[in-house]
Amino acid sequence: MPGPICFLTDFGLEDAYVGVVKGVILSIEPRAQIVDLSHAIPPQDVRAGAFTLMAGVPYFPPGTAYLAVVDPGVGTERRAVAVAVGDYYFVGPDNGLLSWAILKAARGPDTVVVLRGDALLLEGDASAVVLDRPTYWRQEVSSTFHGRDIFGPVAAHLARGVALTELGSPIDSIRALPFPTPTRDDGTVRGEVIYVDRFGNLITNVERVELAPNAVVEIAGRTIGGISPHFQQEAELIALVGSSGLLEIAAPSGSAARVLGAGVGAHVRVLPSR
Amino acid sequence: MPGPICFLTDFGLEDAYVGVVKGVILSIEPRAQIVDLSHAIPPQDVRAGAFTLMAGVPYFPPGTAYLAVVDPGVGTERRAVAVAVGDYYFVGPDNGLLSWAILKAARGPDTVVVLRGDALLLEGDASAVVLDRPTYWRQEVSSTFHGRDIFGPVAAHLARGVALTELGSPIDSIRALPFPTPTRDDGTVRGEVIYVDRFGNLITNVERVELAPNAVVEIAGRTIGGISPHFQQEAELIALVGSSGLLEIAAPSGSAARVLGAGVGAHVRVLPSR
Amino acid sequence: MPGPICFLTDFGLEDAYVGVVKGVILSIEPRAQIVDLSHAIPPQDVRAGAFTLMAGVPYFPPGTAYLAVVDPGVGTERRAVAVAVGDYYFVGPDNGLLSWAILKAARGPDTVVVLRGDALLLEGDASAVVLDRPTYWRQEVSSTFHGRDIFGPVAAHLARGVALTELGSPIDSIRALPFPTPTRDDGTVRGEVIYVDRFGNLITNVERVELAPNAVVEIAGRTIGGISPHFQQEAELIALVGSSGLLEIAAPSGSAARVLGAGVGAHVRVLPSR
Repeated sequence: MPGPICFLTDFGLEDAYVGVVKGVILSIEPRAQIVDLSHAIPPQDVRAGAFTLMAGVPYFPPGTAYLAVVDPGVGTERRAVAVAVGDYYFVGPDNGLLSWAILKAARGPDTVVVLRGDALLLEGDASAVVLDRPTYWRQEVSSTFHGRDIFGPVAAHLARGVALTELGSPIDSIRALPFPTPTRDDGTVRGEVIYVDRFGNLITNVERVELAPNAVVEIAGRTIGGISPHFQQEAELIALVGSSGLLEIAAPSGSAARVLGAGVGAHVRVLPSR
Repeated sequence: MPGPICFLTDFGLEDAYVGVVKGVILSIEPRAQIVDLSHAIPPQDVRAGAFTLMAGVPYFPPGTAYLAVVDPGVGTERRAVAVAVGDYYFVGPDNGLLSWAILKAARGPDTVVVLRGDALLLEGDASAVVLDRPTYWRQEVSSTFHGRDIFGPVAAHLARGVALTELGSPIDSIRALPFPTPTRDDGTVRGEVIYVDRFGNLITNVERVELAPNAVVEIAGRTIGGISPHFQQEAELIALVGSSGLLEIAAPSGSAARVLGAGVGAHVRVLPSR
Repeated sequence: MPGPICFLTDFGLEDAYVGVVKGVILSIEPRAQIVDLSHAIPPQDVRAGAFTLMAGVPYFPPGTAYLAVVDPGVGTERRAVAVAVGDYYFVGPDNGLLSWAILKAARGPDTVVVLRGDALLLEGDASAVVLDRPTYWRQEVSSTFHGRDIFGPVAAHLARGVALTELGSPIDSIRALPFPTPTRDDGTVRGEVIYVDRFGNLITNVERVELAPNAVVEIAGRTIGGISPHFQQEAELIALVGSSGLLEIAAPSGSAARVLGAGVGAHVRVLPSR
């Protein structure tokens, strides 16, 4: 049985756009199970979309098709693609949106995905196609709403059991966004904030393995001593390993983003101890 | 197999209201497939609800029941109705909310729907009933929440396969909202903005057929030359045919509503060319 | 057949958190039917979560598992619990969040639930377990996201048909929030506002039985004469019995919260008549 469709866009929930894509999907595959990941990506913010899509991997069942549409180049020459990696499918515009999620999904022993500059090379049992077969699209294709006319229909056909290779011509690579990697120097790790969630938690690109329990974290002129085991602390600010295994700065009784006046791109420095 | 329920309200997603209606529907028909169209219609804004509901037609599968509740007159004499038109059902208060969507759905050869003043006449194979059979409602009916007590249950019974004619007494017409139609004079089309989406795109009532590629669009004191094929353009403001086939004014790197300080009701003028 | 999962959190819909929990649930029980009650509970506001969860009872089908996560104490000693009461299950942190909904669900002849101080005693055919069997959790449990790692999986196992008693060790009581009860004195009822909905309606703790049609309601220095049968009235402010059977103060053409500058905790006084 094919899996659900995990759906992410920057369409918002105010207008009919998200519902319309779902209607189109159900018109092709009435049994499709569609789960929203987020539709509140800031308009045209491909990087925020890439992060949130990555956060949805690998929590969905094998066979899930991740359908992602943050598409400032809709109607231009940018390609539309579908990718199979590990247990998952990914469908969306070829603008880097899918790249971080695909890297995270590429964990199987036979799956080889290589980030080279702004290209993601798909080898081993990973595979990709450019969506160039209109038979799997809506009959009329607008120049402004490929979520409805191309991406949604293609995800629905995957959910129906159509093979990826049927949906388009094979390609070897897709576009990637550069992933900000922390630097290490003499025991000090320098990273940055890559996402701010609704609680105002500042999520960084520093991974769990870099964090000794007594590490010292510096951000926005403040120093936080030690990595906390959980949120409930007396301190105004804490550093902890968040649910994706990354260093987070949190304010237990409020928003760290507000307390620090910091957001995406803010520098963070981790020292082994004071 | 009956189709899904496509659900639109002004209830918002903060409170339990939307979930409660879904719980009531699933209590009647456990296999019901409920798809949200929007719950962010501004409170009691029947016109905005009518537009968004219309935007959801005809993208859902045949058999879909459109359940719409924007209902400032709940608990008063206003009627509750259900309508079958073309492949679809519509359920909601008789305050004009359903009218534009029904007009859009009435495309079949045997379906005759006529807008006469503030009435929508349903002839041919279109049919409508006033909901006057409490056996298809919740046992206790409040005076403030007919979405839960009448409309949701009736949609659930349609999803169970109950015939429309079982749900109430036949009627010939329902209430309609006047649809703003552009005027044409000597090659110039005068229309207006009828909706602003989350991207700040200004959607007008001017249809694709009125728009030569080199048409000139005037709005809010600004002149836009030519109809663009897609969003990605260098210009601050563009005019294009949006995904519903209507003239839209967009700001490729921002919000046209903000750039122009314009909203619903703003006048737009289309000249064949400069 | 087990019922749906009714899902409430303070996670918001911006981030991937809600979708991730759904992905985890579907990985365990692919046929699970997940219905959102609300994810817009103000961050860490257990009381608002308790009210909204209560508002979702008893509208869902028998067998529904209410999955609720507003969990400021995640990762600390606070217990994780699951409760069976009447036709429903409840899963969440043991911080009072579940208590009002359980009291409302405890209506069957054999179900005995007693509120004693800040404890809810579960007797008769009501039962509860502390979630202490990691075999029903995700393999790795974070200290910050038990919705994903414990509560979601446990709700999925209930939806699969696993018995409550399998999920943990039996307990006799869970934590409760004190429910604000109105006081009565010489015919006058003194209550308070316990919730403000998106329409700005002020929902109080005064029940329908306290309200004669000609009762006089005093709130925020204003006097409202008589209980209205529905929303559509000429008056600036009205008092009526809302859809949960509680006294509400509403502004028919706007927000009563804004008109009165009043919110949760505002005092309300009901006099039998002027």
